[in-house]
Amino acid sequence: MNSIESRLKDLGIVLPDAPKPVASYVPAVKTGNLLVVSGQLAFEDGVLASTGSVPASTSVEAAITAARRCAINGLAVARSSLGGDLGRIRRVVRLGVFVQCEAGFDAQPLVANGASDLMVEVFGEIGRHARAAVGVSALPLDAPVEIDFTFEVD
Amino acid sequence: MNSIESRLKDLGIVLPDAPKPVASYVPAVKTGNLLVVSGQLAFEDGVLASTGSVPASTSVEAAITAARRCAINGLAVARSSLGGDLGRIRRVVRLGVFVQCEAGFDAQPLVANGASDLMVEVFGEIGRHARAAVGVSALPLDAPVEIDFTFEVD
Amino acid sequence: MNSIESRLKDLGIVLPDAPKPVASYVPAVKTGNLLVVSGQLAFEDGVLASTGSVPASTSVEAAITAARRCAINGLAVARSSLGGDLGRIRRVVRLGVFVQCEAGFDAQPLVANGASDLMVEVFGEIGRHARAAVGVSALPLDAPVEIDFTFEVD
Repeated sequence: MNSIESRLKDLGIVLPDAPKPVASYVPAVKTGNLLVVSGQLAFEDGVLASTGSVPASTSVEAAITAARRCAINGLAVARSSLGGDLGRIRRVVRLGVFVQCEAGFDAQPLVANGASDLMVEVFGEIGRHARAAVGVSALPLDAPVEIDFTFEVD
Repeated sequence: MNSIESRLKDLGIVLPDAPKPVASYVPAVKTGNLLVVSGQLAFEDGVLASTGSVPASTSVEAAITAARRCAINGLAVARSSLGGDLGRIRRVVRLGVFVQCEAGFDAQPLVANGASDLMVEVFGEIGRHARAAVGVSALPLDAPVEIDFTFEVD
Repeated sequence: MNSIESRLKDLGIVLPDAPKPVASYVPAVKTGNLLVVSGQLAFEDGVLASTGSVPASTSVEAAITAARRCAINGLAVARSSLGGDLGRIRRVVRLGVFVQCEAGFDAQPLVANGASDLMVEVFGEIGRHARAAVGVSALPLDAPVEIDFTFEVD
Protein backbone atom coordinates (compact mmCIF):
# COMPACT_ATOMS: atom_id res chain seq x y z
CA MET A 1 0.00 0.00 0.00
CA ASN A 2 1.59 3.28 -1.04
CA SER A 3 1.72 6.32 1.16
CA ILE A 4 -1.31 8.06 -0.33
CA GLU A 5 -3.50 4.98 0.07
CA SER A 6 -2.21 4.67 3.60
CA ARG A 7 -3.03 8.31 4.25
CA LEU A 8 -6.57 7.84 2.89
CA LYS A 9 -6.99 4.89 5.23
CA ASP A 10 -5.76 6.91 8.20
CA LEU A 11 -8.27 9.62 7.32
CA GLY A 12 -11.07 7.07 7.08
CA ILE A 13 -11.67 8.01 3.44
CA VAL A 14 -12.92 5.24 1.17
CA LEU A 15 -12.73 6.20 -2.49
CA PRO A 16 -15.74 4.97 -4.44
CA ASP A 17 -15.47 3.17 -7.75
CA ALA A 18 -14.87 5.77 -10.42
CA PRO A 19 -17.94 6.54 -12.50
CA LYS A 20 -18.09 4.79 -15.84
CA PRO A 21 -17.58 6.88 -18.96
CA VAL A 22 -20.94 8.23 -20.05
CA ALA A 23 -21.88 9.17 -23.56
CA SER A 24 -19.43 11.45 -25.33
CA TYR A 25 -17.48 12.76 -22.42
CA VAL A 26 -15.24 10.90 -20.04
CA PRO A 27 -14.28 11.31 -16.39
CA ALA A 28 -10.71 12.39 -17.15
CA VAL A 29 -8.19 12.96 -19.92
CA LYS A 30 -4.41 12.75 -19.57
CA THR A 31 -2.45 15.12 -21.78
CA GLY A 32 1.30 15.31 -21.31
CA ASN A 33 1.86 15.48 -17.57
CA LEU A 34 -1.57 16.88 -16.85
CA LEU A 35 -4.61 14.90 -15.79
CA VAL A 36 -7.77 16.91 -16.46
CA VAL A 37 -10.77 15.64 -14.46
CA SER A 38 -14.37 16.44 -15.42
CA GLY A 39 -16.61 18.44 -13.11
CA GLN A 40 -17.61 16.26 -10.17
CA LEU A 41 -20.80 16.36 -8.17
CA ALA A 42 -21.09 15.13 -4.59
CA PHE A 43 -22.53 11.72 -5.37
CA GLU A 44 -22.33 9.21 -2.55
CA ASP A 45 -23.66 5.75 -3.30
CA GLY A 46 -25.34 7.22 -6.36
CA VAL A 47 -27.23 10.02 -4.65
CA LEU A 48 -26.62 13.64 -3.74
CA ALA A 49 -26.90 14.17 0.02
CA SER A 50 -28.03 17.75 -0.54
CA THR A 51 -29.58 19.65 -3.44
CA GLY A 52 -30.54 23.23 -4.08
CA SER A 53 -28.82 26.56 -3.69
CA VAL A 54 -26.77 27.85 -0.77
CA PRO A 55 -27.75 28.98 1.80
CA ALA A 56 -31.56 28.75 1.46
CA SER A 57 -31.88 25.11 0.39
CA THR A 58 -28.43 23.81 1.29
CA SER A 59 -26.73 25.09 4.43
CA VAL A 60 -23.15 26.33 4.25
CA GLU A 61 -22.13 23.37 6.39
CA ALA A 62 -23.84 20.92 4.04
CA ALA A 63 -22.19 22.66 1.07
CA ILE A 64 -18.75 22.28 2.67
CA THR A 65 -19.49 18.58 3.10
CA ALA A 66 -20.60 18.40 -0.54
CA ALA A 67 -17.36 20.10 -1.68
CA ARG A 68 -15.35 17.55 0.30
CA ARG A 69 -17.29 14.77 -1.36
CA CYS A 70 -16.67 16.27 -4.82
CA ALA A 71 -12.95 16.10 -3.98
CA ILE A 72 -13.20 12.47 -2.91
CA ASN A 73 -14.95 11.66 -6.17
CA GLY A 74 -12.29 13.58 -8.09
CA LEU A 75 -9.62 11.46 -6.42
CA ALA A 76 -11.55 8.31 -7.30
CA VAL A 77 -11.53 9.38 -10.96
CA ALA A 78 -7.85 10.24 -10.79
CA ARG A 79 -6.96 6.91 -9.23
CA SER A 80 -8.88 5.03 -11.88
CA SER A 81 -7.20 7.07 -14.64
CA LEU A 82 -3.74 6.45 -13.16
CA GLY A 83 -3.94 2.66 -13.09
CA GLY A 84 -4.97 2.66 -9.46
CA ASP A 85 -1.90 4.55 -8.26
CA LEU A 86 -2.51 7.98 -6.69
CA GLY A 87 1.22 8.04 -5.92
CA ARG A 88 1.67 9.13 -9.54
CA ILE A 89 0.22 12.55 -8.63
CA ARG A 90 3.09 15.02 -8.31
CA ARG A 91 0.99 18.06 -7.58
CA VAL A 92 -2.62 19.13 -7.28
CA VAL A 93 -2.55 22.02 -9.77
CA ARG A 94 -5.99 23.60 -9.76
CA LEU A 95 -9.56 23.29 -8.52
CA GLY A 96 -12.43 25.05 -10.31
CA VAL A 97 -15.25 25.39 -7.77
CA PHE A 98 -18.81 26.29 -8.73
CA VAL A 99 -21.27 26.88 -5.89
CA GLN A 100 -24.98 27.05 -6.63
CA CYS A 101 -26.12 29.98 -4.53
CA GLU A 102 -28.49 32.86 -4.25
CA ALA A 103 -27.48 36.37 -5.24
CA GLY A 104 -25.83 38.04 -2.27
CA PHE A 105 -24.10 34.90 -0.98
CA ASP A 106 -20.40 35.62 -0.90
CA ALA A 107 -18.77 32.81 1.07
CA GLN A 108 -17.84 30.60 -1.88
CA PRO A 109 -14.26 30.34 -0.53
CA LEU A 110 -15.55 28.84 2.71
CA VAL A 111 -17.50 26.22 0.76
CA ALA A 112 -14.53 25.53 -1.51
CA ASN A 113 -12.32 24.89 1.51
CA GLY A 114 -14.20 21.62 1.98
CA ALA A 115 -12.41 20.38 -1.13
CA SER A 116 -9.15 22.28 -0.70
CA ASP A 117 -8.60 21.05 2.82
CA LEU A 118 -9.21 17.47 1.74
CA MET A 119 -6.48 17.75 -0.87
CA VAL A 120 -3.96 18.93 1.69
CA GLU A 121 -5.05 16.30 4.22
CA VAL A 122 -4.40 13.62 1.63
CA PHE A 123 -1.35 14.95 -0.22
CA GLY A 124 0.31 17.33 2.23
CA GLU A 125 2.43 20.07 0.66
CA ILE A 126 1.88 18.89 -2.94
CA GLY A 127 -1.86 19.12 -2.28
CA ARG A 128 -1.73 22.94 -2.20
CA HIS A 129 -3.30 24.20 -5.40
CA ALA A 130 -4.48 27.20 -7.36
CA ARG A 131 -8.22 27.74 -7.23
CA ALA A 132 -11.09 29.76 -8.61
CA ALA A 133 -14.37 29.72 -6.70
CA VAL A 134 -17.49 31.38 -8.07
CA GLY A 135 -21.23 31.38 -7.44
CA VAL A 136 -23.61 30.17 -10.13
CA SER A 137 -27.38 30.18 -10.50
CA ALA A 138 -27.84 26.52 -11.42
CA LEU A 139 -25.94 23.23 -11.56
CA PRO A 140 -26.58 19.78 -13.03
CA LEU A 141 -29.11 17.72 -11.08
CA ASP A 142 -29.64 20.70 -8.77
CA ALA A 143 -26.32 19.93 -7.06
CA PRO A 144 -25.07 22.58 -4.63
CA VAL A 145 -21.42 22.24 -5.72
CA GLU A 146 -19.49 21.16 -8.81
CA ILE A 147 -15.69 20.97 -8.87
CA ASP A 148 -13.23 20.18 -11.63
CA PHE A 149 -9.60 19.24 -11.08
CA THR A 150 -6.23 19.48 -12.76
CA PHE A 151 -3.39 17.29 -11.50
CA GLU A 152 0.26 17.09 -12.51
CA VAL A 153 1.14 13.42 -12.87
CA ASP A 154 4.11 11.36 -13.98
CA MET B 1 -8.36 15.98 -48.02
CA ASN B 2 -7.40 14.45 -44.68
CA SER B 3 -9.63 12.12 -42.73
CA ILE B 4 -11.07 14.75 -40.41
CA GLU B 5 -12.03 17.03 -43.30
CA SER B 6 -13.54 14.01 -45.00
CA ARG B 7 -15.49 13.18 -41.87
CA LEU B 8 -16.78 16.75 -41.62
CA LYS B 9 -17.94 16.49 -45.23
CA ASP B 10 -19.70 13.18 -44.55
CA LEU B 11 -21.47 14.79 -41.61
CA GLY B 12 -22.51 17.75 -43.74
CA ILE B 13 -20.64 20.13 -41.46
CA VAL B 14 -19.18 23.23 -43.08
CA LEU B 15 -16.76 25.05 -40.81
CA PRO B 16 -17.11 28.82 -41.06
CA ASP B 17 -14.16 31.14 -41.47
CA ALA B 18 -12.56 31.58 -38.08
CA PRO B 19 -13.36 34.89 -36.45
CA LYS B 20 -10.67 37.53 -36.77
CA PRO B 21 -8.71 38.46 -33.65
CA VAL B 22 -10.58 41.21 -31.86
CA ALA B 23 -9.01 43.77 -29.60
CA SER B 24 -6.73 42.38 -26.92
CA TYR B 25 -7.78 38.79 -26.90
CA VAL B 26 -7.46 36.21 -29.62
CA PRO B 27 -9.46 33.17 -30.67
CA ALA B 28 -6.81 30.68 -29.55
CA VAL B 29 -3.33 30.33 -28.06
CA LYS B 30 -1.01 27.38 -28.55
CA THR B 31 1.24 26.59 -25.61
CA GLY B 32 3.39 23.48 -25.76
CA ASN B 33 1.12 20.73 -27.08
CA LEU B 34 -2.04 22.43 -25.92
CA LEU B 35 -4.31 24.60 -28.02
CA VAL B 36 -6.48 26.77 -25.78
CA VAL B 37 -9.56 28.14 -27.57
CA SER B 38 -11.52 31.17 -26.32
CA GLY B 39 -15.14 30.85 -25.26
CA GLN B 40 -17.27 30.43 -28.36
CA LEU B 41 -20.84 31.55 -28.92
CA ALA B 42 -23.22 29.95 -31.42
CA PHE B 43 -22.76 32.47 -34.19
CA GLU B 44 -23.93 31.33 -37.60
CA ASP B 45 -23.41 33.76 -40.45
CA GLY B 46 -22.78 36.44 -37.85
CA VAL B 47 -25.98 36.00 -35.85
CA LEU B 48 -27.14 33.97 -32.87
CA ALA B 49 -30.07 31.73 -33.81
CA SER B 50 -31.36 31.88 -30.25
CA THR B 51 -30.88 34.25 -27.32
CA GLY B 52 -32.01 34.32 -23.72
CA SER B 53 -31.98 31.86 -20.87
CA VAL B 54 -32.97 28.20 -20.89
CA PRO B 55 -35.71 27.03 -20.80
CA ALA B 56 -37.97 30.13 -20.73
CA SER B 57 -36.49 32.07 -23.67
CA THR B 58 -34.46 29.33 -25.34
CA SER B 59 -35.85 25.80 -25.45
CA VAL B 60 -33.65 22.91 -24.38
CA GLU B 61 -33.68 21.69 -27.98
CA ALA B 62 -32.55 25.09 -29.26
CA ALA B 63 -29.84 25.18 -26.59
CA ILE B 64 -28.55 21.76 -27.69
CA THR B 65 -28.38 23.11 -31.25
CA ALA B 66 -26.54 26.18 -29.97
CA ALA B 67 -24.03 24.00 -28.10
CA ARG B 68 -23.39 22.03 -31.29
CA ARG B 69 -22.83 25.29 -33.15
CA CYS B 70 -20.37 26.49 -30.45
CA ALA B 71 -18.43 23.28 -31.09
CA ILE B 72 -18.41 23.85 -34.84
CA ASN B 73 -17.09 27.35 -34.26
CA GLY B 74 -14.47 26.01 -31.87
CA LEU B 75 -13.29 23.63 -34.58
CA ALA B 76 -13.16 26.50 -37.07
CA VAL B 77 -10.89 28.40 -34.67
CA ALA B 78 -8.75 25.32 -34.10
CA ARG B 79 -8.37 24.67 -37.82
CA SER B 80 -7.33 28.25 -38.44
CA SER B 81 -4.82 28.08 -35.57
CA LEU B 82 -3.36 24.81 -36.86
CA GLY B 83 -2.57 26.00 -40.37
CA GLY B 84 -5.77 24.55 -41.73
CA ASP B 85 -5.05 21.01 -40.57
CA LEU B 86 -7.45 19.53 -37.99
CA GLY B 87 -5.49 16.29 -38.37
CA ARG B 88 -2.96 17.82 -35.99
CA ILE B 89 -5.46 17.36 -33.14
CA ARG B 90 -4.39 14.34 -31.11
CA ARG B 91 -7.09 14.60 -28.49
CA VAL B 92 -10.00 16.76 -27.47
CA VAL B 93 -8.97 17.39 -23.85
CA ARG B 94 -11.70 19.48 -22.25
CA LEU B 95 -14.87 21.46 -22.86
CA GLY B 96 -16.00 24.16 -20.43
CA VAL B 97 -19.73 24.61 -20.96
CA PHE B 98 -21.70 27.58 -19.61
CA VAL B 99 -25.47 27.50 -20.06
CA GLN B 100 -27.48 30.66 -19.45
CA CYS B 101 -30.48 29.37 -17.52
CA GLU B 102 -33.01 30.14 -14.88
CA ALA B 103 -32.54 28.99 -11.30
CA GLY B 104 -33.93 25.49 -10.97
CA PHE B 105 -32.87 24.33 -14.44
CA ASP B 106 -30.64 21.32 -13.95
CA ALA B 107 -30.19 19.73 -17.37
CA GLN B 108 -26.93 21.47 -18.32
CA PRO B 109 -25.40 18.07 -19.23
CA LEU B 110 -28.14 17.50 -21.80
CA VAL B 111 -27.40 20.87 -23.39
CA ALA B 112 -23.65 20.25 -23.28
CA ASN B 113 -24.11 16.96 -25.13
CA GLY B 114 -24.85 19.01 -28.23
CA ALA B 115 -21.16 19.92 -28.28
CA SER B 116 -19.76 16.71 -26.81
CA ASP B 117 -21.54 14.50 -29.33
CA LEU B 118 -20.26 16.65 -32.20
CA MET B 119 -16.68 16.13 -31.04
CA VAL B 120 -17.08 12.37 -31.05
CA GLU B 121 -18.88 12.39 -34.39
CA VAL B 122 -15.95 14.26 -35.91
CA PHE B 123 -12.97 12.74 -34.09
CA GLY B 124 -14.18 9.33 -32.91
CA GLU B 125 -12.38 7.94 -29.87
CA ILE B 126 -9.94 10.87 -29.55
CA GLY B 127 -12.96 13.15 -29.44
CA ARG B 128 -13.92 11.92 -25.96
CA HIS B 129 -13.08 14.68 -23.50
CA ALA B 130 -13.28 15.86 -19.92
CA ARG B 131 -16.02 18.39 -19.32
CA ALA B 132 -17.50 20.78 -16.80
CA ALA B 133 -21.03 22.06 -17.42
CA VAL B 134 -22.59 24.73 -15.23
CA GLY B 135 -25.53 27.12 -15.32
CA VAL B 136 -24.94 30.87 -15.28
CA SER B 137 -27.21 33.88 -14.99
CA ALA B 138 -25.94 35.84 -17.99
CA LEU B 139 -23.71 35.46 -21.06
CA PRO B 140 -22.22 37.80 -23.64
CA LEU B 141 -24.75 39.09 -26.19
CA ASP B 142 -27.48 37.23 -24.30
CA ALA B 143 -26.24 33.96 -25.81
CA PRO B 144 -27.78 30.79 -24.34
CA VAL B 145 -24.49 28.85 -24.40
CA GLU B 146 -20.76 29.60 -24.29
CA ILE B 147 -18.13 26.88 -24.60
CA ASP B 148 -14.35 26.97 -24.38
CA PHE B 149 -12.06 24.20 -25.61
CA THR B 150 -8.68 22.66 -24.89
CA PHE B 151 -7.09 20.42 -27.51
CA GLU B 152 -3.89 18.38 -27.46
CA VAL B 153 -2.10 19.01 -30.74
CA ASP B 154 1.19 18.09 -32.35
CA MET C 1 15.30 46.70 -14.58
CA ASN C 2 14.03 44.39 -17.30
CA SER C 3 11.76 45.50 -20.08
CA ILE C 4 8.51 44.40 -18.44
CA GLU C 5 9.31 46.22 -15.21
CA SER C 6 10.25 49.23 -17.29
CA ARG C 7 6.98 49.00 -19.16
CA LEU C 8 5.02 48.79 -15.90
CA LYS C 9 6.82 51.92 -14.72
CA ASP C 10 6.01 53.75 -17.96
CA LEU C 11 2.36 52.80 -17.51
CA GLY C 12 2.39 54.03 -13.93
CA ILE C 13 1.45 50.58 -12.67
CA VAL C 14 2.75 49.59 -9.26
CA LEU C 15 2.33 45.89 -8.55
CA PRO C 16 1.30 45.23 -4.96
CA ASP C 17 2.95 42.63 -2.79
CA ALA C 18 1.54 39.26 -3.77
CA PRO C 19 -0.99 37.93 -1.29
CA LYS C 20 0.34 35.36 1.14
CA PRO C 21 -0.77 31.77 0.71
CA VAL C 22 -3.97 31.29 2.65
CA ALA C 23 -5.16 28.02 4.09
CA SER C 24 -5.10 25.10 1.68
CA TYR C 25 -4.89 26.89 -1.59
CA VAL C 26 -2.11 29.04 -2.92
CA PRO C 27 -1.93 32.04 -5.26
CA ALA C 28 -0.29 30.10 -8.08
CA VAL C 29 1.08 26.72 -9.12
CA LYS C 30 3.75 26.13 -11.74
CA THR C 31 3.41 22.90 -13.71
CA GLY C 32 5.77 22.30 -16.61
CA ASN C 33 5.87 25.56 -18.53
CA LEU C 34 2.49 26.71 -17.27
CA LEU C 35 1.88 29.04 -14.38
CA VAL C 36 -1.70 28.66 -13.14
CA VAL C 37 -2.86 31.65 -11.07
CA SER C 38 -5.82 31.47 -8.68
CA GLY C 39 -8.92 33.60 -9.21
CA GLN C 40 -8.07 37.20 -8.33
CA LEU C 41 -10.37 39.85 -6.93
CA ALA C 42 -9.81 43.59 -7.36
CA PHE C 43 -8.22 44.21 -3.99
CA GLU C 44 -6.34 47.48 -3.68
CA ASP C 45 -4.64 48.13 -0.36
CA GLY C 46 -6.71 45.33 1.09
CA VAL C 47 -10.14 46.60 0.05
CA LEU C 48 -12.46 46.22 -2.93
CA ALA C 49 -13.20 49.60 -4.52
CA SER C 50 -16.59 48.36 -5.67
CA THR C 51 -18.90 45.54 -4.64
CA GLY C 52 -22.18 44.18 -5.92
CA SER C 53 -23.49 43.11 -9.27
CA VAL C 54 -23.21 44.91 -12.60
CA PRO C 55 -24.82 47.22 -13.59
CA ALA C 56 -27.18 47.96 -10.66
CA SER C 57 -24.65 48.10 -7.83
CA THR C 58 -21.41 48.40 -9.79
CA SER C 59 -21.36 50.50 -12.95
CA VAL C 60 -19.88 49.06 -16.11
CA GLU C 61 -17.08 51.60 -15.86
CA ALA C 62 -16.30 50.58 -12.27
CA ALA C 63 -16.37 46.93 -13.33
CA ILE C 64 -13.86 47.62 -16.11
CA THR C 65 -11.62 49.26 -13.52
CA ALA C 66 -12.07 46.25 -11.24
CA ALA C 67 -11.12 43.88 -14.07
CA ARG C 68 -7.96 45.91 -14.70
CA ARG C 69 -7.13 45.69 -11.01
CA CYS C 70 -7.68 41.90 -11.02
CA ALA C 71 -5.11 41.75 -13.83
CA ILE C 72 -2.61 43.85 -11.87
CA ASN C 73 -3.06 41.53 -8.91
CA GLY C 74 -2.61 38.51 -11.18
CA LEU C 75 0.68 39.97 -12.38
CA ALA C 76 1.76 40.55 -8.80
CA VAL C 77 1.12 36.89 -8.05
CA ALA C 78 2.96 35.83 -11.20
CA ARG C 79 5.96 37.99 -10.39
CA SER C 80 6.19 36.58 -6.89
CA SER C 81 5.90 33.02 -8.25
CA LEU C 82 8.63 33.66 -10.84
CA GLY C 83 11.28 34.86 -8.43
CA GLY C 84 10.45 38.48 -9.12
CA ASP C 85 11.04 38.25 -12.87
CA LEU C 86 8.03 38.87 -15.12
CA GLY C 87 10.44 38.59 -18.04
CA ARG C 88 10.08 34.83 -17.63
CA ILE C 89 6.55 35.06 -19.05
CA ARG C 90 6.63 33.91 -22.66
CA ARG C 91 2.94 34.26 -23.32
CA VAL C 92 -0.29 35.16 -21.59
CA VAL C 93 -2.27 32.02 -22.43
CA ARG C 94 -5.76 32.46 -21.00
CA LEU C 95 -7.97 34.61 -18.81
CA GLY C 96 -11.12 33.21 -17.22
CA VAL C 97 -13.37 36.17 -16.42
CA PHE C 98 -16.39 35.97 -14.12
CA VAL C 99 -18.59 39.04 -13.87
CA GLN C 100 -21.18 39.28 -11.10
CA CYS C 101 -24.19 40.68 -12.91
CA GLU C 102 -27.92 40.74 -13.11
CA ALA C 103 -29.80 38.55 -15.55
CA GLY C 104 -30.05 40.36 -18.86
CA PHE C 105 -26.62 42.02 -18.65
CA ASP C 106 -24.70 40.94 -21.70
CA ALA C 107 -21.60 43.13 -21.88
CA GLN C 108 -19.21 40.80 -20.05
CA PRO C 109 -16.67 41.18 -22.89
CA LEU C 110 -16.57 44.95 -22.33
CA VAL C 111 -15.86 44.40 -18.64
CA ALA C 112 -13.25 41.74 -19.40
CA ASN C 113 -11.43 44.13 -21.71
CA GLY C 114 -10.29 45.99 -18.60
CA ALA C 115 -8.03 43.02 -17.90
CA SER C 116 -7.27 42.01 -21.48
CA ASP C 117 -6.14 45.49 -22.48
CA LEU C 118 -3.85 45.67 -19.46
CA MET C 119 -2.12 42.46 -20.52
CA VAL C 120 -1.41 43.85 -23.98
CA GLU C 121 -0.29 47.21 -22.60
CA VAL C 122 2.24 45.42 -20.42
CA PHE C 123 3.37 42.55 -22.64
CA GLY C 124 2.61 43.68 -26.18
CA GLU C 125 2.06 40.91 -28.71
CA ILE C 126 2.73 38.07 -26.24
CA GLY C 127 0.02 39.58 -24.03
CA ARG C 128 -2.71 38.54 -26.47
CA HIS C 129 -4.58 35.63 -24.91
CA ALA C 130 -7.50 33.26 -25.17
CA ARG C 131 -10.41 34.20 -22.95
CA ALA C 132 -13.77 33.08 -21.63
CA ALA C 133 -16.04 35.71 -20.07
CA VAL C 134 -19.30 34.78 -18.39
CA GLY C 135 -21.83 36.31 -16.03
CA VAL C 136 -22.42 34.79 -12.61
CA SER C 137 -24.93 35.43 -9.87
CA ALA C 138 -22.51 35.75 -6.95
CA LEU C 139 -18.78 36.07 -6.23
CA PRO C 140 -16.58 35.87 -3.13
CA LEU C 141 -16.82 38.92 -0.87
CA ASP C 142 -19.49 40.33 -3.19
CA ALA C 143 -16.77 41.28 -5.69
CA PRO C 144 -17.99 42.43 -9.11
CA VAL C 145 -15.26 40.59 -11.01
CA GLU C 146 -13.03 37.54 -10.51
CA ILE C 147 -10.35 36.56 -13.01
CA ASP C 148 -8.00 33.60 -13.18
CA PHE C 149 -4.88 33.44 -15.36
CA THR C 150 -2.73 30.95 -17.19
CA PHE C 151 0.75 31.99 -18.33
CA GLU C 152 3.39 30.18 -20.36
CA VAL C 153 6.71 30.66 -18.59
CA ASP C 154 10.27 29.45 -18.96
